[in-house]
Amino acid sequence: MEFLKNNVSAPKGFKALGKAVGIKNSNNLDFAVIFSETKAETAAVYTKNKVKGAPLIVTKEHLKDNQAQAIAINSGISNVATGKKGIEDAKKIAKETASELSIKTEDVLVASTGLIGAYLPMERILKGIKGINNELTSNGSNAAKAILTTDLVKKEIAVKVDNFTIGAIAKGSGMIHPNMATMLCFITTDAKLSSKKLQSFLKNSVNKSFNMASVDMDTSTSDMAIAMANGLAGSADEKKFQEALDYVCVDLAKKIAKDGEGATKLIEVEAKNSKTEEDAKKIAKSIINSNLVKCAMFGNNPNWGRIICAIGNSEADFKENSIDIYFGEEKIVENGVTAGFDYKKVKEIMKKDELKIIIDLKNGKESATAFGCDMTRDYIKINALYTT
Amino acid sequence: MEFLKNNVSAPKGFKALGKAVGIKNSNNLDFAVIFSETKAETAAVYTKNKVKGAPLIVTKEHLKDNQAQAIAINSGISNVATGKKGIEDAKKIAKETASELSIKTEDVLVASTGLIGAYLPMERILKGIKGINNELTSNGSNAAKAILTTDLVKKEIAVKVDNFTIGAIAKGSGMIHPNMATMLCFITTDAKLSSKKLQSFLKNSVNKSFNMASVDMDTSTSDMAIAMANGLAGSADEKKFQEALDYVCVDLAKKIAKDGEGATKLIEVEAKNSKTEEDAKKIAKSIINSNLVKCAMFGNNPNWGRIICAIGNSEADFKENSIDIYFGEEKIVENGVTAGFDYKKVKEIMKKDELKIIIDLKNGKESATAFGCDMTRDYIKINALYTT
Repeated sequence: MEFLKNNVSAPKGFKALGKAVGIKNSNNLDFAVIFSETKAETAAVYTKNKVKGAPLIVTKEHLKDNQAQAIAINSGISNVATGKKGIEDAKKIAKETASELSIKTEDVLVASTGLIGAYLPMERILKGIKGINNELTSNGSNAAKAILTTDLVKKEIAVKVDNFTIGAIAKGSGMIHPNMATMLCFITTDAKLSSKKLQSFLKNSVNKSFNMASVDMDTSTSDMAIAMANGLAGSADEKKFQEALDYVCVDLAKKIAKDGEGATKLIEVEAKNSKTEEDAKKIAKSIINSNLVKCAMFGNNPNWGRIICAIGNSEADFKENSIDIYFGEEKIVENGVTAGFDYKKVKEIMKKDELKIIIDLKNGKESATAFGCDMTRDYIKINALYTT
Repeated sequence: MEFLKNNVSAPKGFKALGKAVGIKNSNNLDFAVIFSETKAETAAVYTKNKVKGAPLIVTKEHLKDNQAQAIAINSGISNVATGKKGIEDAKKIAKETASELSIKTEDVLVASTGLIGAYLPMERILKGIKGINNELTSNGSNAAKAILTTDLVKKEIAVKVDNFTIGAIAKGSGMIHPNMATMLCFITTDAKLSSKKLQSFLKNSVNKSFNMASVDMDTSTSDMAIAMANGLAGSADEKKFQEALDYVCVDLAKKIAKDGEGATKLIEVEAKNSKTEEDAKKIAKSIINSNLVKCAMFGNNPNWGRIICAIGNSEADFKENSIDIYFGEEKIVENGVTAGFDYKKVKEIMKKDELKIIIDLKNGKESATAFGCDMTRDYIKINALYTT
């Protein structure tokens, strides 16, 4: 696998742009377009929140034929809880984008992220859409920037395997919770795949990555992962494609977790040797979602009692007196009681910007990994003041 | 209903004490005893966390006959994840307490709260138990203090209705989450009731109060509510007893929520006109548990989008376009979209130390209320540094 310095515009036939159309203040990039020169087989996974944003409803409608040629994304306002006007606005964006790109309205998907309950400044957006056909480039950097909200860093990746390339951008740093949902992710590839296959590959990858990532347990109303395959590179080895797509999604899920609102570190929790994969997932997620665990990790406090407590709350099957817990290589708990660890050494492990916690359940052969971050004073600051 | 200035020692025949035995630092009160001069019919509700503390296991055993005469409680260390030694320690406390009070070991219940994974300093505790028979008083104030951990204020209440009195003390300010569990609560009454009746009354009250209170979604490993009825005041009107017990438990649940770690205000969420009570409960709890909602409340930010998002995540049945939301008397949302409210006026409502949020689902006739608090920088501070 070769890593390329680009993102969604890396695969053959894809271009992208990111620009400021005036939704956000002070000329920040807030509008992106991803475009394929030919129609692409397209797959999507959507939020499980019962309240769904207008763009999501329109995208679903436009994806009935599992084909698309462009995605128009804005940040700043999510166009959620906006009633009929919200739907009309989302449709207008698709229509104007299609018109500028000389493609069909139904082949344009739309996505929005940001404040819930406000209407989009349509005049400014429609003005911004004018001329986009001349602004598309083979560098996706601005597109990766334009979809961000409270994110501090761009999330992007592009990998090449054999004949095919996969590129992707993502956003998300709050409202990130296991249940798909949780973020925006746009994936492009030049591999030739049916939309049915692509849907299955995407679902598999999402279950291992975004559905195992959590910042604050809130599943957003707007979020989705979309994958477009335009086929320009010809057929791909299916196993290799799935592996590459897994890599891309896990990489972005980690980047999202690490950039969690106010986070100082990425936390990876692996629950291993569990009776079932479902139990391992429940345990890993319960730990990554515990506010008390997350606060302890911020304080570099090896407070393993909270981890045991989170395991107990997970509703998974386990044997308390056979649980071992490791921070990095260091064993903290053995058979459910303290392993008498070296406090200073563990503190040093915890101070790094990536922490791996391993729960060895010694109760079976299955495993699962969840991705999250610590909880800090800055999380409160951001979310007490920011109007999402 | 008459309010008395006392707590568990208010009903006839009950006494209590609180003292420092050296579990906590700097001579803080950390050991309490509640004693009935006659054996009492006793009911209990326990944590739903699958990991259960040693004291809870011993208490369950001693309560097989549904009778008890004393409760010995320590704070500072919870005696959880302590294996066989933990069970032996809990039994020793019961035995020594029984011996000092000249009652049976099986009639002493035990409870502990505090750090998980550490052993109790048994020598100091057993020394502290010596002489307790002379230290019991008719003032429960020190008992209410001695069971606290990160709590800032005592939680106590005593009410008199007709011939009977109910008194109670509680603790809890973190790890508070709907599922009973969540805290320690000790209730005494001189009403004459069978343990079976008492159990049913207690369960009803707990479902409306502690099970609807949340500070941080973590259900603790140690927590329980115990009610002792010694019958010295004779028979009680059952309806009036249930009402009084409901009042006592809701009052303590609110006090716990308001004293949530780092909290600046009590938040009450009422979901009303829901199709089913279960749906109303899910919606009220989902809102009270949302970190994003809690942060917005701290910032006095009427960010109702997060409330809509939490409703969408609740798995309850509702109609998005018929939801009205009120902050106090002020309508914020009408039929799922903004009601065009007076921002300054709402800010003023939010600045008070108690905030009532009403969700009118206009979808049925059932309702439920949940109790919680805002999430602040101090929550992080307390939980990043404190070793629970």
